[in-house]
Amino acid sequence: MRAEIISIGTEITTGQNLDTNSQWLSQQLAALGIPVAFHTTIADNLPDNIEAIGIAVRRCNLVIITGGLGPTLDDLTREALAAVANQPLEFHAESLAAIEAMFRSRNRPMPDRNRVQAMFPHGSEPIPNQVGTAPGIWMTIGGCHVAALPGVPREMHPMFEDWVRPRLSALGIGGEVLIERRINTFGAGESQVEALLGDMTARGRVPEVGITASAGTIRLRIVAKAADALAAQRLIAPTEQAIRDRLGDLIYGVDDEELHDVAARLLMQSQKTIATAESITAGQIAERLARVPGISAHLNGGAVTYTNDIKTKVLGVPKELIDRHGAVSAAVAEAMARGARSLFDSDLAISATGLAGPSTAGEDHPVGTVYLGLAWADGVLSRHVQWFGSRVEIQGRAARSALNLVRLFLEGKVK
Amino acid sequence: MRAEIISIGTEITTGQNLDTNSQWLSQQLAALGIPVAFHTTIADNLPDNIEAIGIAVRRCNLVIITGGLGPTLDDLTREALAAVANQPLEFHAESLAAIEAMFRSRNRPMPDRNRVQAMFPHGSEPIPNQVGTAPGIWMTIGGCHVAALPGVPREMHPMFEDWVRPRLSALGIGGEVLIERRINTFGAGESQVEALLGDMTARGRVPEVGITASAGTIRLRIVAKAADALAAQRLIAPTEQAIRDRLGDLIYGVDDEELHDVAARLLMQSQKTIATAESITAGQIAERLARVPGISAHLNGGAVTYTNDIKTKVLGVPKELIDRHGAVSAAVAEAMARGARSLFDSDLAISATGLAGPSTAGEDHPVGTVYLGLAWADGVLSRHVQWFGSRVEIQGRAARSALNLVRLFLEGKVK
Repeated sequence: MRAEIISIGTEITTGQNLDTNSQWLSQQLAALGIPVAFHTTIADNLPDNIEAIGIAVRRCNLVIITGGLGPTLDDLTREALAAVANQPLEFHAESLAAIEAMFRSRNRPMPDRNRVQAMFPHGSEPIPNQVGTAPGIWMTIGGCHVAALPGVPREMHPMFEDWVRPRLSALGIGGEVLIERRINTFGAGESQVEALLGDMTARGRVPEVGITASAGTIRLRIVAKAADALAAQRLIAPTEQAIRDRLGDLIYGVDDEELHDVAARLLMQSQKTIATAESITAGQIAERLARVPGISAHLNGGAVTYTNDIKTKVLGVPKELIDRHGAVSAAVAEAMARGARSLFDSDLAISATGLAGPSTAGEDHPVGTVYLGLAWADGVLSRHVQWFGSRVEIQGRAARSALNLVRLFLEGKVK
Repeated sequence: MRAEIISIGTEITTGQNLDTNSQWLSQQLAALGIPVAFHTTIADNLPDNIEAIGIAVRRCNLVIITGGLGPTLDDLTREALAAVANQPLEFHAESLAAIEAMFRSRNRPMPDRNRVQAMFPHGSEPIPNQVGTAPGIWMTIGGCHVAALPGVPREMHPMFEDWVRPRLSALGIGGEVLIERRINTFGAGESQVEALLGDMTARGRVPEVGITASAGTIRLRIVAKAADALAAQRLIAPTEQAIRDRLGDLIYGVDDEELHDVAARLLMQSQKTIATAESITAGQIAERLARVPGISAHLNGGAVTYTNDIKTKVLGVPKELIDRHGAVSAAVAEAMARGARSLFDSDLAISATGLAGPSTAGEDHPVGTVYLGLAWADGVLSRHVQWFGSRVEIQGRAARSALNLVRLFLEGKVK
């Protein structure tokens, strides 16, 4: 058993877009124990599509294609599959009805050209798309299973998960499963985390431990292969425990969890409300918390206070305090948090003030200086963090630092 | 002339690493006027490497390979190239001396296995590597030029720039440059934009017009090929004008511009200040504007008002108004904008209230309903938009809709 993943689109071969679908699908297939031998990317060009799909179905047992299923003239996957399978394209009434229903639900008329999305190679099956208009295609060509899915990740992911994966299981395709566990940390750099882990990240270790860094978050990846998921998880558990023993409070979550997910969950569990007072992060702390469904009952509100006058007027930060300490200071961060807690009638308030750059705007601090404040019924605290990077990177890291402070506070680890 | 880019590495076919080299090389080749027809990714497996490189040198005139040049047993590019070219591997003394010098400069002994990096297929040329130990390989196989480079971007990039690119020029490969112009639109769906463009997106048109959709933004890509950049731009200009004539106010910017860039630029140009009043977007409108350097003097502040009580307390939205119309209504959006304008002493204020889901939280509207408000010295207006998608997608699209309304207002296109 081996698989090939094909991405179709001139926007990828010209370098305009980065192909992330092939990586995602490779991870999904790896988890099912299906080795991926090739990725192929093709421009929107019919002869090349026919040639590349033809090569793939001859050398592999499973081919997953993304892209080229839209309604436009450069969407050629339907035609290419029909040509490789040497079958005519046929109209599928049920798929057209689904496409029409999708347009009705958006109160838009269906343009005529979307009808082409209901054309399928003879002998194929439509893969339903609950999110967009393009149905996928499932077929067998010379003994090779082929799934064609849209290139838009938010359509492709659920179609793979809800339809293709169960179909692969039903066909008994797959072997040893590969299970991955991610341990997410914040508050230390990559080399610091690596030093704490000692030889745990050595190559050839079983299970393997990898390390990746992104936006201030250091992620450890424990990867184990075994006959079934339970056996793989048994391999992972002692390694996860050893990592937890070494990294302690640096660990904020696992797998896909982000800092805002954990902070929101802790707010919900502790039945507490929060407010934000944001200068450098300009709304990003609140925006991140608000991504979590059900946060409405816990995020009372927030203030973006960019200018000094607004810090004073809206949050009641005394003008003398700003004059004495500067807007980028622990004292002002604490006063902002206190002010937000009172304005928004919340249990907690988190604040961030700092310099995102690129210029220092006359401040005495280097770009990347951030002060965080956290106020609660019985007190207030502040933290100084120093970040680096572009304006947007510093803003994002400052927001994550603030969410991490909320997390540590609600876990009882700072006071 | 057409090129293929091959990435070699099991870490890519398993989905552990994302292949960014192929995108980077595609962009470099496009700028040289060399069209890329295929990307291929292969695991560290000799027969697959030989097969895939063989296919590439037969169907293309230029093949650029990254990866598989390291010293370990799974580095197979040297052997695969020798097999495809049907040539023996030969020892290259100068390259070994360079590898030894690299180790000396790092004060480390050269492990024996690094000697293999000085082996080259007969008839090939080494491409020097100033940054790492792996030299690249340049050779010709059956009339196809092949460059093999290391997979590490910080080694690969300078080797391409300093050696491969000059060699391609010396050979007279490419020549015609490929220039891309992107026209970005917001406010209409992909098929609606395509309908307005008529046959402009037809395949084979010169210059070519492509269309991509992401997060409510529809981007048109005009791609022209000509002897030099000026000639390519002359090809693009009339097509850009024709697109502008057909799409009018839907167009908000070009190339990498996003809605917040344009809204921020218009605020700076018109010397106006703005404030935000955000419910559904929870700070994202302010956060996006704040990404733009120099916005501090124009973004006075903003309020995130999630609960009804806070809308009343902080923004002065009358309780009776919320009781009568509901929090998700044009009347409340307008009152929020008016309140923010007054609280933050700004020229303009933009507001957003709506339902991000996944539940409707007892509201009478479907998930995705958004009302925007815009207040200025002489008036206030509101807009209703209906989005679809996940909670985070709806929040993002609502924020973009709000920024688009600011853009249209500052351009004098709504009042």
